[in-house]
Amino acid sequence: MLLGEVVGTVVSTHKDQELEGIKFLLVQYVGSDGKKTPGVVICADAVGAGRGEWVLVAAGSSARQTKLTKDRPVDHVIMAIVDEVELGGQITYRKE
Amino acid sequence: MLLGEVVGTVVSTHKDQELEGIKFLLVQYVGSDGKKTPGVVICADAVGAGRGEWVLVAAGSSARQTKLTKDRPVDHVIMAIVDEVELGGQITYRKE
Amino acid sequence: MLLGEVVGTVVSTHKDQELEGIKFLLVQYVGSDGKKTPGVVICADAVGAGRGEWVLVAAGSSARQTKLTKDRPVDHVIMAIVDEVELGGQITYRKE
Amino acid sequence: MLLGEVVGTVVSTHKDQELEGIKFLLVQYVGSDGKKTPGVVICADAVGAGRGEWVLVAAGSSARQTKLTKDRPVDHVIMAIVDEVELGGQITYRKE
Amino acid sequence: MLLGEVVGTVVSTHKDQELEGIKFLLVQYVGSDGKKTPGVVICADAVGAGRGEWVLVAAGSSARQTKLTKDRPVDHVIMAIVDEVELGGQITYRKE
Repeated sequence: MLLGEVVGTVVSTHKDQELEGIKFLLVQYVGSDGKKTPGVVICADAVGAGRGEWVLVAAGSSARQTKLTKDRPVDHVIMAIVDEVELGGQITYRKE
Repeated sequence: MLLGEVVGTVVSTHKDQELEGIKFLLVQYVGSDGKKTPGVVICADAVGAGRGEWVLVAAGSSARQTKLTKDRPVDHVIMAIVDEVELGGQITYRKE
Repeated sequence: MLLGEVVGTVVSTHKDQELEGIKFLLVQYVGSDGKKTPGVVICADAVGAGRGEWVLVAAGSSARQTKLTKDRPVDHVIMAIVDEVELGGQITYRKE
Repeated sequence: MLLGEVVGTVVSTHKDQELEGIKFLLVQYVGSDGKKTPGVVICADAVGAGRGEWVLVAAGSSARQTKLTKDRPVDHVIMAIVDEVELGGQITYRKE
Repeated sequence: MLLGEVVGTVVSTHKDQELEGIKFLLVQYVGSDGKKTPGVVICADAVGAGRGEWVLVAAGSSARQTKLTKDRPVDHVIMAIVDEVELGGQITYRKE
């Protein structure tokens, strides 16, 4: 999985029927040190993540293993909201 | 998923039999800020996307989860047409 | 899928038994503008592609959805021969 | 698989129900020469790996083939702890 | 598939039970011109490849389609030993 921060949303009304009820969030990947990397990915949200929260993103077929995304054409899913990241004995992120 | 803009088409008459009836569109990836990135990908079109529209592209086995692409040898599918992208409170794209 | 040009062949006699009868072609990826990109990939050939032809390549589990490659350990397949590429209203490739 | 070193942990209490009981470790990829590469990945831990240990990481659907991760939305798993790496006749890593 | 050369081995005694009996080889990717690219990947060996040999490597779920790797948590497999590579009419590699 990769770490990311929720930074926006994508709205689509015209889409494959298998996508009804899925919310798409824009996620920017971050390193464990908290620095954002360039580029974003659009993820189905399986956990009700909020703007500014750090999340874990699973990609590929693994993105279809949540209850929400089963058998649906999505390739990235937010499957966890991060409480804390510890790197080399240092807390580099803690959810407020 | 990644954001992309439909920029062209690919025509093929000699192809695997599992591909009959699938339309291939050239999609150029774009960042959430609207800037196009280099390179293009060829996608099966599951939603009737038009030239210049922004779309969501799902890759890998997830690309085979639409009704159109089930069990077919395609690894990228357009599964949604984007209405609006919001990033950091700003609308960075709105379909005209 | 990605666009590529058939540029060579790979021969292997000692291989997994599931690979019998599969022809391996060297494919160099090209952009829609016709410029070749560095590097090559080895693909199973499901359509009888010839040297110099432009083809579509599907990767991952999608590469196993042709009749030829079903349940076989291949991760890239040529599943279509390209007749024409149109980009921004211009024909950038046409098969001779 | 890729080689990595366990460098930290990620804690999440709010997550998809399929993730209960899975420990997430931060892994930094290393080359066979022992040099760390930039960036980290978050892995489910199927083998009880410890900080500083070198591990093998499997990605994609293969990450769901351990007993721990079966049918769960994880796309990277630590499936082996490395004892020794030999490259070109030289031992480049040996577990202490 | 990608071309690679067998350059080393990885030994692991503490691993997921599904990995028993699998030999891990270090493979360095090479271009069709014979030049090695940076970085290595660890592959399950399904064909008994030897040091210095050129091999084909399949990745992802396709890596689990050999008899050896079925349902096992490996994401790269050596599924063929290369006899010859021909590129643009020139033999760029021939097994000795």
